[in-house]
Order: sequence, then structure tokens, then C-alpha cells
Amino acid sequence: METKNYSPGILQYIPFFYVIWSDNLLSYSETSVVKKAIEQDDTLTKEDYNYLIGYLDKKTPPAYQELKHWKKVISNTKIKLVESDTYPLSTFSQKMICHHFDECPFNSHLKDIEINLGIQPNHYNHLFEIEIIKEITSSYYNPVELDAILKGDHASIIDTFRDVLKDPIFNWSIKRDKESFRAHVLKQVEFLAKEGYGAMAYPTLYGGTENMPAYAAIFENMMYVDGSMAVKFGVQFGLFGGSIQKLGTKKHHDAYLSETGKAKLLGCFAMTETGHGSNVRGVKTTATYDKETDTIIIHTPGKNDNKEYIGNALHSSMASVFAQLIVEGKNHGVHAILVPIRDAEHKLIPGVTIEDNGYKLGLNGVDNGKIWFHQVRVPRENLLNKYGDIKPDGTYHSDIENPSKRFFTMLGTLVGGRICVARAGLGGAKKALAIAVKHALKRRQFNDSVKIQEDLLMDYPSHQLRLTPAIASCYVYDITLTHMMKEYSDTTVLDKRKIETQAAGLKSIITWFANNTIQECREACGGKGYLMENQITDLKGDVDIFTTFEGDNHVLLQLAAKGVLSDFKSEFNSAGFTAVLKLLGARIGDKLNTINPIYINNTDKDHLYDVKFHKHAFNYRTRRLTYTVAMRIRDYVKKGIPSYQAFLKVQTHLLALGKAYSVELAYSTFADFTDTIKDEKNRLLFQKISALYALHELKKDASWYLEQGYIGGTKSKALRKHVERLSTELRPHIGVLIDGFGIPEHCMEAPIAT
Amino acid sequence: METKNYSPGILQYIPFFYVIWSDNLLSYSETSVVKKAIEQDDTLTKEDYNYLIGYLDKKTPPAYQELKHWKKVISNTKIKLVESDTYPLSTFSQKMICHHFDECPFNSHLKDIEINLGIQPNHYNHLFEIEIIKEITSSYYNPVELDAILKGDHASIIDTFRDVLKDPIFNWSIKRDKESFRAHVLKQVEFLAKEGYGAMAYPTLYGGTENMPAYAAIFENMMYVDGSMAVKFGVQFGLFGGSIQKLGTKKHHDAYLSETGKAKLLGCFAMTETGHGSNVRGVKTTATYDKETDTIIIHTPGKNDNKEYIGNALHSSMASVFAQLIVEGKNHGVHAILVPIRDAEHKLIPGVTIEDNGYKLGLNGVDNGKIWFHQVRVPRENLLNKYGDIKPDGTYHSDIENPSKRFFTMLGTLVGGRICVARAGLGGAKKALAIAVKHALKRRQFNDSVKIQEDLLMDYPSHQLRLTPAIASCYVYDITLTHMMKEYSDTTVLDKRKIETQAAGLKSIITWFANNTIQECREACGGKGYLMENQITDLKGDVDIFTTFEGDNHVLLQLAAKGVLSDFKSEFNSAGFTAVLKLLGARIGDKLNTINPIYINNTDKDHLYDVKFHKHAFNYRTRRLTYTVAMRIRDYVKKGIPSYQAFLKVQTHLLALGKAYSVELAYSTFADFTDTIKDEKNRLLFQKISALYALHELKKDASWYLEQGYIGGTKSKALRKHVERLSTELRPHIGVLIDGFGIPEHCMEAPIAT
Repeated sequence: METKNYSPGILQYIPFFYVIWSDNLLSYSETSVVKKAIEQDDTLTKEDYNYLIGYLDKKTPPAYQELKHWKKVISNTKIKLVESDTYPLSTFSQKMICHHFDECPFNSHLKDIEINLGIQPNHYNHLFEIEIIKEITSSYYNPVELDAILKGDHASIIDTFRDVLKDPIFNWSIKRDKESFRAHVLKQVEFLAKEGYGAMAYPTLYGGTENMPAYAAIFENMMYVDGSMAVKFGVQFGLFGGSIQKLGTKKHHDAYLSETGKAKLLGCFAMTETGHGSNVRGVKTTATYDKETDTIIIHTPGKNDNKEYIGNALHSSMASVFAQLIVEGKNHGVHAILVPIRDAEHKLIPGVTIEDNGYKLGLNGVDNGKIWFHQVRVPRENLLNKYGDIKPDGTYHSDIENPSKRFFTMLGTLVGGRICVARAGLGGAKKALAIAVKHALKRRQFNDSVKIQEDLLMDYPSHQLRLTPAIASCYVYDITLTHMMKEYSDTTVLDKRKIETQAAGLKSIITWFANNTIQECREACGGKGYLMENQITDLKGDVDIFTTFEGDNHVLLQLAAKGVLSDFKSEFNSAGFTAVLKLLGARIGDKLNTINPIYINNTDKDHLYDVKFHKHAFNYRTRRLTYTVAMRIRDYVKKGIPSYQAFLKVQTHLLALGKAYSVELAYSTFADFTDTIKDEKNRLLFQKISALYALHELKKDASWYLEQGYIGGTKSKALRKHVERLSTELRPHIGVLIDGFGIPEHCMEAPIAT
Repeated sequence: METKNYSPGILQYIPFFYVIWSDNLLSYSETSVVKKAIEQDDTLTKEDYNYLIGYLDKKTPPAYQELKHWKKVISNTKIKLVESDTYPLSTFSQKMICHHFDECPFNSHLKDIEINLGIQPNHYNHLFEIEIIKEITSSYYNPVELDAILKGDHASIIDTFRDVLKDPIFNWSIKRDKESFRAHVLKQVEFLAKEGYGAMAYPTLYGGTENMPAYAAIFENMMYVDGSMAVKFGVQFGLFGGSIQKLGTKKHHDAYLSETGKAKLLGCFAMTETGHGSNVRGVKTTATYDKETDTIIIHTPGKNDNKEYIGNALHSSMASVFAQLIVEGKNHGVHAILVPIRDAEHKLIPGVTIEDNGYKLGLNGVDNGKIWFHQVRVPRENLLNKYGDIKPDGTYHSDIENPSKRFFTMLGTLVGGRICVARAGLGGAKKALAIAVKHALKRRQFNDSVKIQEDLLMDYPSHQLRLTPAIASCYVYDITLTHMMKEYSDTTVLDKRKIETQAAGLKSIITWFANNTIQECREACGGKGYLMENQITDLKGDVDIFTTFEGDNHVLLQLAAKGVLSDFKSEFNSAGFTAVLKLLGARIGDKLNTINPIYINNTDKDHLYDVKFHKHAFNYRTRRLTYTVAMRIRDYVKKGIPSYQAFLKVQTHLLALGKAYSVELAYSTFADFTDTIKDEKNRLLFQKISALYALHELKKDASWYLEQGYIGGTKSKALRKHVERLSTELRPHIGVLIDGFGIPEHCMEAPIAT
């Protein structure tokens, strides 16, 4: 064997020399450090010393053949480098000698070189065969199976869509100029329309498949490309097209739906006004029917009554305008009217004024604008007349006599958008988590000062705790939203009030969750997360507004709470005080049982991981909060405080109730779903995810449970401990859990995540 | 009187007609609505009816004289319009009749017009004298006095600085292109240098006043202009200049300090490396002394060992480089060396490679870059040699023999930067709060459906709860940081380890607080907060990274915790396991007294607002956590787990301890300060702020206190209740509290805040 040529003294230095000369350059610091170590190494013979020192002269580098020979010597041993060793290179040298000789002591002079040169395995690991001792991520679970479970019924549609996203038009890049960004996003939307995705939710007659659930699923996937693209897509096909589809009748469908689905007719959804952000019912724009000319006159009364923040406003030629419909001097409430805003040359129609909203924190690829109407006339037929119509004789007619009910029926048809916003937020959270986890599985952080190789970020307990419960929540919310959309799209269920309330609550907790998660991911990636190239910043800017648009979260949670209080009998979105008050009487009797002291302090793992415990705890909170809020309101009303004021006084309690209800709903939907997973291995994993979500949510609100005496101090501590334990238990699988999101590889372009 | 000309029937319609015709245009909707009301109004005589209907014909508008006469009729009554009335205009009409006639019933037909026209006071309030019933903000306190308390000793310097900020160079605008943004920020920094602010913290010999506390105060004020400006200023004068001042000796001061203070010599602070974000001690860049040529060779060994994220990297001609100093083959640890990186023509010095870091989430006016050194030689004199020197004979010498102690002494001198980062974060939070509060004092939100005028956003309890505790925290942290900086700058205190620990902890909790607050403000302003023009988005992007730079918050909190565990005896920033372990023995005996059951459930207001209670509660938490963390570590070590691993296992507990200690420190600093306020009125206000901060912080951690049995369920509920109550109590003063921050008016350019 060639290695016999070397004495043990020389042999042990070969790996070091190999590393030092591998880049054909011996630096000054390397010379002196290595020289000193060799000088002090008293285990070397005179011959060894001379041989070694001879290779430290810059003027006489080892010949190529020599280097090649060293490499051979190293490879022939078949020894692998273990990066996680405390001194990987010294240990490697030691093993080399063991391989050839009887004695193989650890040479501390080698260690000194390793420390003083400050070289880490990542500097030279390309030169060696590597042995991975600690597995970075386990392959016990299969990400393809996890992804399949999440995709559910829509697997093939989603897979096809993910393939479509491979087109270069969807490549990510930094875009600072809003004009060119918007132009590009428009092209992307047109591309998707051409592929048939725009019309997806419309009837087949108009180029679609009437598949709203699949639409929602692909909508989430759009977030993997770009938030602006998703939002503009949603405005064009979901809001504008959706208003035609759901508030219009056949004449409107025939005239506009196909063209809308193809993005040939671009439109916007002009609902919100500057002065009345969340109060749709109070919009000031008027739509006055003029019998003489058989036209409707659209008008913005005051300067601040303009339509505000309207997406697609700069590209559209038509707007679906929400206005107070006045017929024969009587206001019939808010209706939607199709109003052309630009002509064939893309010039504004006389009377229409549009201003760019300018730069925003995110979504700068969406052209938001303000719109004013000055006595703009449109034919009577432009009224989207499914729920309220002006007859040819100039009289108003609606099948729904109660104006309030009519209003909320109209709005209700558009609630699918809220589920989509939640889905998009979820997509943002997933992508941020995928980036942060992939980074944490590569990035090493300082640790024990004597160890050369630093630990992986993902091995830190605090890092596990930051990311793992959020990953679990993504699984829970994914399944919940799929379920929600299915119920919402179920045409056999006519009364959608309950599902609308639920969508309002889920949209709130999920978009907040998404924002918190993205922020946590940004911080978990440190300064790298702050660089645009790593894409978390885009998600942060884009998802931020999801807590506000399609209904401000604070407002939505109060609506959800009112829904719960009135057992979903009140009109959705309505102030609904009277309805709620009427129902309170019945529910106030709904006292809760006292909790058993053994239960209060039960910290057995079996109990803590038990679905029954979770369901009971979540349900208890919802019921308890319902009861106390109801009692408070009743007491205020008894004291003569007007109901509006009474509701204002319990506002913070309503928010708590809205959240509690939504978390309970998400948990129980997911827990029930896990039972349906046929494969046991995956079922058990989903049950673990379910437990982590439950315990994490209970922990977050532990002070409330403690106050109520529902749990004791030891049980509260146990919740925390088990959240940490589950996060650590899932550590080996975290890479797989992330891959289970199914984010296409071509959408994971962040340098830190590749 | 002219008004006698009108019958009561006509008179009551005059205000409406005046409003309708005031814009010289009677719209269709207005005609029909008003016509219908008049037709149905059976209180009108035939004459009244004819007169009124006569004014509804577009073809015959009232003459200018007529309109003027109506105005006179209205003005003469001296009646004021009350916007907060349920039906402001109808009520106004009613008062007009009362003014002239005996009977004055409320006419519901007028109300119908008001509702159906959908006109709100903001459409016509310019036409009337207005009476404000509900005061938007009280003038009981004086913002100037509050500002004076916060400014403390530095009032005149701060005031002068705020005046300087009036220069148009500090005007805000949207900047999307990083090149022009950076160029502008450079100009701003040069402008400030010319005004003498750059050198402020340097000795008088070099153009300064050696006033670090005042420097920190103006630093916060820079955030009111722009985060990029503040950060670039901090890099140039605080980090680069600070390293020369504090790590260098007279020869360096003489050569560079004046020019640095004038921004004639631009420099950067090259510490962080790509591969070793938070581990400064583990930087890989080498500085090898070559005796032959008497030079130091700066070298980047591996591709990922480059200096990363270095601010000012693209404008600088010199860098203060942190590298492993190798002399005579021995590594003496990290030292700073001044390395020229560009020549007089701004060309890179051979061997230096610099890459732009590109776009970031925020701070795009700061030119961050990556720097590689390839065998770059500098004279031996360029070593900043205050704590470690290479003698002319080529030997290394340091007065501090222990390398670890030497390292942390060097770093410790730079800790002032952390206090400045916290101050800047605080400035960002203040500005965001000012914008959000000013908006909430103007913006109206929907409410009771029968009320015409909507409530102010600020009147919603949930809104008060979102913003008021954050305002209180700003006051607390302001005073705390001023105190910290004073202690830090006190040259009579030689051992800075305690203050360094404290700065680490405070930097963490305050920068997190700032980020959460800015986010809350963004959401509290709804979609308006998302528009760049309203400036919260800039703060969001800029302040975000404060949680990461100048020490990652997670790392800093653990350092703070280790400081507490070792009674501030361990080396700052050190892993310091041994020091900590040594000290644990002594502290483990520190058991806490049992809490009295009466105390546990005491919900008296006097008790809850008592400083003694707050201090005890905060101190109890710190001590208890110290004790339990110490016990856990001891148990692990007893089991034979290496100390590094043991600390890893208690990581989440260390974070909790670091936070607890920092909150206690902030609270007690503030509470003690309030006692020194001479004016009783302001002292009581500050005490209220102090109580709100304390109760809010205790509430946030209520589950922990409940678990410990320190408070009972009823007391926990009482905490929440009093946080809400105090927030509501401070509602009338919220405008003044915000003005008390002293943000110059010329820095409040956001449209929603003006």
C-alpha cells in the first residue's frame, strides 16, 4: 500500500496539508499556525519534522502528483469525515492512523491548528467523503403522502396548476416600480385566464367548471408565486366576476361572464368608500333611477365618499358599483350596478374620476385606486338584479321584502372571498415556514466554545418552539378551510348564515396567525430574512393587509360573536342587536357543570393528548364566554343602557368569544378529519399535530382557564411542557412536514432555502 | 326680523334647502327624496307646500340673493350645529323653530330626508357654526410639560435638533430606488455632520462635546425623519467612529476622529460574517501579523466568511475590521483593525471585494454590503490597540491577560449602540402611535344604525385597549433608556458588566415592543395604514430588523439571563457557563416566602395601583425564575449533562428570565423617577401611566402568576378590568399624551395624521 510510505507522524498531518494546499495557496496565517504546531509537536521524529516543514514554503508548493497522491492515501482508508465531531479534521487524522497502525493517540497539536486556523468543515467538506451522524430530517414519513392528504379531492387540479406555475412568467424577481410590476401581474393574470383558471368557478356555459373549492385551493398556491398576482386574480374573477355571477341574472351572465373569465373584460369591485371602511351598508354613493330616461344615475355625493382602494381600478373598463339605490324617491338600500368606467381606448368615461392609490406596504403589483362618479348614467339593465330589480314600469321590486335581509343575502353570496383570503394567508405562512425551516436545517449557530462544528439552528429548543406549533397550525387550518369551502359550496344548504359567521371568524384568526408566523420566520432567519431576495419580506408586506381587507378582523370577530350569541339566527353582518337580545333569554339558563378536581389537575400524558379533553376545553370556553357576555349585555340593558351602547361595552368580550369559537371550530374540524385517515402511520402523525395545536392554543389562553378554575397550576405548567416536548418530538420530521405543504420546488427560489 | 317672513313650516326646511343648493346643483336623487318628504309632510299648509316645491325645480334654482338670505336667517339664530346629534340637521331645524316660535316638534319627515339623502355633517359642516359637545381631547394636561419631563437634561439640545430637522433636506417622500435613496441619505448625514451632530459623542479636541446621552436622545428624534438616516448616521459616527474612539488610541484619534465626525472620512464597521451571525467571537477573518514587512494581513478564509450586511459599505473608504489576530503563530482572539477599502477615487483597494446586499424589507437608504478580503496588507499601526497591541519588536501585548476578558472588554465599549437601537425603536413606536391616535381622533366608524354621525374610532373600547397601554409603555421605556444611558456614560463606574446586561435585555424587550406596536398601529389605521404616504409602512419595514441587529434578541435575552444568574459577575456576552454554575450554589438557597392568601385575592383599587404591589410582583417573578432555572441547571449537571447542553435545555426558561428581569428594571426605573416629578398634577399622571404599564405587563403574564399561586383568579380578572379602565380613563388625554412625545409637527406629514 502506498500509505506505508508515510510514518504515523507524517500521516496524521496529511489531511491538514491536503486541506491547506487544496486551493493552491498557503496564506501567511496558515504558514505560521501550522509551523508553530509542528515545532511544538514532540511526537515527531527529526525526519518527520523536516518532511513536514518542507511543505510549508510558499515557494515550493507540492506538485500536482503529490497532492493527488495525498488524496489517494485519504480515499483508500475509506474513512469518512464526521462534521459533527468536536474536532472533525483532527479526529479524521486520528482515525487514519488507527487504520494503519496499532496506536492512535489524539494529537492535541493538530487540534491547535484546527482551532487557530479557524477552519470549519464547510470550508473543506468537498474534499472528503462525509458521514452524516445526526440525521437532519427523518424519512419515516413521506411528504408526498402528507401533501396528498391536504390536497384531498382536488389533487389532480392542484398538481396540474403547480405544473402550470413552472412557466417562466411566474419566476420571482424584485420589483420596485409599481407601473412595471402591475403590467407584469396583469400579464400573469391573463396567462392564467387563458389556461382556464379565471372562469373556474363559473358555470360550464361560460367556460368554467363551477368548482369553487378547487378555485380556493389553487388560489392558495398562487401565493407561492406572488401575493399581487393572487389578489389581482381574486379581484378580477372572484369579486368582479363573482358579483356578476351571483348578484346578476342570465342577461348579465350572457353579456359579461365569458369575457370576464377570459380576462378580456377587466373589472373592479367598487364597494368600500374612504369615509366608511367597514360599514358597507352606510356607503354614500347613490344610484338614482331616472324614469324619464330609464337610466340609473351613479353619483358620489361628498369628496370623501369616493370608492377607495379598489383593486384593478387602473386596468378595468367596468366596475361593479355598490350604491344606495333610490327609486321613486325611496332608498332601497345597497345594490350593485355595472358601470362602464373606460371606453375601448381605455379612456375614462365622462363623469368618472380615478386616482392611483400609490405605493403600499405590499401588493404593489395590484393597481388600487380611488373612484369618484359624477352623475354617471347607465341603462336600467345594468342593475345586478337577482335580489332586487327595477321593473320596466319604473317600480322597485324584490322577493326579499325585509331590506336588511336583502342586503345580507347579497353580501352573503360573496363570502367565499373571505375563505379565499384565509387560504391565501395560510399559503403565505406555509411558504415563510418552508423558507425558515429549510434555512434552519442548513444554518449553524455558535455553541460550546470548544466545538468546531456549530449546531444547526433547528436543534435549538427555542427555534423548535418558534416554528413547530405554527407548522401544526398550518395543517389544522388547511383541513378546516377545505371543509369550510365544501360546506359553503354545498348547494343543498340554503341558509348560509352559519357558514358565513364561521368564515368571518376563521378569516380573522387565520390571517392574524399568518402575519405572526411570517414575522416569526423573518426573525428566525435573522438578517437573511430581511433581505428581499429571501422572499419572506414580500410575504410580510403582502399578507399584512389580509387582516384588514374583505372585512377588518376586529369587525369580523364581533360579527362571529353575535352569530354565536344568536345561535346563527341573526342576519349575517347585521348589527343584529335585537335578534341577539331576543335570543339571550333562552341561553342565559345554560349554566356549565362544575369541573371535577381530579380533572383540573390531571397531567397524565394520555389525558393531555386526548381529543376529548381538547374538545371539552374549547367547547367549555365558547359556552362560558357566551354565557358571561350574554349576562353582561342583559345587565346593561336592564339598567336602561341602549343596546348599541351595551354591545360597545362588551366589545373586548365579543372579540374573545369570536376567537374562542373560531379556534374550537378549527380544532374540532381537524380532529374529526384525522379519524378519517385510513393509513395508520399518517393518522397518528395527524393526531400528534392535532394535539400540538390544541395544547398550544390552550397554553396561549392558560390565564383564562386558570381564572375559571378549569385547570390548576400544575396542569397549566404541563401544557407548556408538552408543547415543548411535542415540538422536540417532531424535530426529526420537520423537513418532511414542510415538504408536505407541497410548495412546488420552482416556487422556492430564496437563496437561503435552496 | 327677516325670519318673520317664513312660517314655521317653511323655516324648518330652510337649512335643508340651504345645504342642497349650496353646491349649486340639485341632483336627481335629491329632488325625489326631498319632494317625497314634502308631499308626505301633513303639517305643511298649502302655501308652505307650494313655496317649498317651487325650489325643487332644477330649471329655476334660487337666486344668489335668496341663498344669501337663507344663510342670514340661519346665522342670525346663533344656533350651532352639533355633529354628534343623532340627526344633526333635523335637530338643527327643530332648534331654529324653537328659536322663533313656541312650539317646536321634531319633524320626522326631515329625518327621512336626512337618512335617505345619506348626507353626513362632514358634507355640509362648512356651512354652519359648529358646536363640539364631546371634547375630542382634553386640555387638562399640557403636552409641552410632558415633553419637558421626557427631554430632561437634554431639552435645549433636543429642541435645537428638532429645529434643524425643519430643513427641507429632511422632508419625507416615497423612495423606491435604492441608489437615489442612498445618495439622499448620505447627503442628510453629511448635513448633520456639518451641523456638528456627527462628532457629538467625541472629545472636544475632535469637534465633539463628549455627550453620549444627548447623542442617544437626538438619535431617537432621527427616526421621526427616516430610519435609514438614523441607521446610516449610527454606523458612521457611532459604530465606525465609536470603534476608533473606544478601541483606538491617540494616534488613531488624531488621524481619523475629526474627519470621521465631519463625515469627510466615511467608514464602516465590519464585524458580522455571513456564516456566523451572532457569534462575533467565532469570526473567521484573520489578521496575521507579518514581521518581515511589519504589516498585518487581512484575509477572508472561506467563501462564507465574508463580512455581511455591513452598513455604509458602498460609500466608505475605510473599514473597522474585526478579525482573529494571529501574531507569531498564535491566535490572540478578535481585534479591530482599520483597513482602507477604497482609494481617493473611490476605487476598491486591490484584494477587497464588495457586493451590494441589495434590496431589503426596509432601510433601503442604507448601503449594506458584503466584504471579502484577499491578503490585504495594512501597517501594524492600523490595529486599534487600546486593549491589545503588537509591539515594534513583533510581539503581542495586552494589559488584560485573560483573552476572554479582553474580548468582552472590547465589545463592552460598544454597548452604547444597543441603547441607541432601543431608543430608535422607541422613536418608531412613538411616531406610529402618534399617527394612529391622530387618525382615530378624526376617523369615524359606523355604529348604531339610526345615528347619522358615526363615532370616533378612538371612542371604541377595543381601540383604546390597542393603543393606550402602548403609549404608557413608551413613557416608561423613554425614562428607562435615559437613565440607562446616564449610567452607561458615567465614567466613575468602571465595571460596566451590569449595565451591559441591562442594555441587552432592554434592547430586546423594547425593540419587540416597538415592532408589535407599529403593527398594531398599522392595523388600527386599517387600509389607510397600509398606504406608504401614511408612513407607518416605512416604520414597519425599518424597525423590523432592530430585533436582529446589534445582537439578536433571543441571544441577548439569554445573555441577560446569564448575567442575572451570575449576579453580573460573569463576562458579558460570554457563554460564561462556568461562572454561572459557580454562583448557582449560593443562590439556590434563595427561597421565596409564601404569599399571604389575602394578598393573593386582594382586588382593591388602592392595592392594584400600588407601586409596592407592582415592584413586589415583578421582583418575585425575577427571583422565582432565577431560582427555578438555577435548580434545573444544577439537576442536569448533576446527571452528568455537560453545562453547554444543560443551558440549551433551559433555553426557553432563560428567555423568560431575561424578559422578566428587563420588565422589572424598566418598571422600577420609571416608578422611582415619577417620585422625582415636582409638579403634582404631572406626577399623578405619570403614576397612572406607571400603573397602566405594570398592570398590563402583569396581565400579559397572568398565567405564570396564577400557576405560581401568586394571584388568584379574581385578582387576575381584576388586572384585566383595570387595564381596560385605565385605558378608558386616559381617553380624554390621549391626544395630549401623544403630543407629549414632542414629535415635531414638520415630521408628522402623513395625510391621515394632519
